Amino acid sequence: MRLPDTFSALCEKFERFPGIGAKTARRMVFFILEQEREWVDAFARSLVDLRDNIGTCPICGCLSSSGNCPVCSDPSRDSTAICVVENQEDCIAIEQSGVYRGLYHVLGGRCSPLDEQTIPEASLQGLKKRIADGGVEEVILALSPRVEGDMTAYEVSDALRGSGVKITRLSYGLPIGGSISYSDTMTLHVALESRSEL
Amino acid sequence: MRLPDTFSALCEKFERFPGIGAKTARRMVFFILEQEREWVDAFARSLVDLRDNIGTCPICGCLSSSGNCPVCSDPSRDSTAICVVENQEDCIAIEQSGVYRGLYHVLGGRCSPLDEQTIPEASLQGLKKRIADGGVEEVILALSPRVEGDMTAYEVSDALRGSGVKITRLSYGLPIGGSISYSDTMTLHVALESRSEL
Repeated sequence: MRLPDTFSALCEKFERFPGIGAKTARRMVFFILEQEREWVDAFARSLVDLRDNIGTCPICGCLSSSGNCPVCSDPSRDSTAICVVENQEDCIAIEQSGVYRGLYHVLGGRCSPLDEQTIPEASLQGLKKRIADGGVEEVILALSPRVEGDMTAYEVSDALRGSGVKITRLSYGLPIGGSISYSDTMTLHVALESRSEL
Repeated sequence: MRLPDTFSALCEKFERFPGIGAKTARRMVFFILEQEREWVDAFARSLVDLRDNIGTCPICGCLSSSGNCPVCSDPSRDSTAICVVENQEDCIAIEQSGVYRGLYHVLGGRCSPLDEQTIPEASLQGLKKRIADGGVEEVILALSPRVEGDMTAYEVSDALRGSGVKITRLSYGLPIGGSISYSDTMTLHVALESRSEL
């Protein structure tokens, strides 16, 4: 059966989203078909709105609807700490956990020679400038715990050498709620290496 | 951090889709942000297009862009068999497997007293009329292998009593590629009951 063109066209578009396979895409299109016309119109408008009205903060590079982002504009945040993340998604994940009260810096890329990716020079320069402007005491590297993350961390700390700022990274180890029997060798290895005294 | 309104508004809309949680919704919104403006516009248009241009086939109730659906309009299909499914999604799943060459009938509902759902009367009448019009030899009930599906199957076969048509249902048993140790009790039970001689 040849599916109607409008149906398959939308399925294909949904399949391009990360983590969405053919079957989920089809279910999503059926969901659209079940909605009121007004809802579909509003959904379509939201998409275009997002694209038109969301930009990045000129200071930290995180999401912002106009000018500086809510974190950079908030005087109650701890401006002595900058948390360096690879992308805006990681920034929002940390922010929504509510465990951090300092500022951010989004690199917008990572160091990965195999994929020919490097950290955008402008974002490294931006970070150096923020530190040179004074007031920053600690840079916390919150990069993914794998080879690319470690290389990125190395490159950022190399770029900041001599700035006098303290550089730290998030701890590696067993995830809370996980089980030892399901942990992989590498995680067990770092968890053992970084063990702490009780 | 308060996320920009346009961002959270779209996240909420994506979360309403079946099987999409908060994190996937956020990833989908980030995906939108990464796309070219033209792609987002085309995506938004596809959504409205779908809603405006897709209808249901007046004969079988499956998806159709205008008039009868591709299956009902195809003279090479076996018009002596009608496969009864609960909804359009099930119809497309069977159709895309390529194992069936007959016609369909979408009930558009199921018999489920607990949820106060019944099979729409119009669709049962439609099915009876198609059989009364002649040419149909077999009605294959392809309903979900659980209580609601069995009750729906019973109701359909009850409505067709006396029509002289042969009524069958899909077999129940171990799914191909599955493993016996992971099968649930009910499946093992039917698989044993319906065992066949080698």
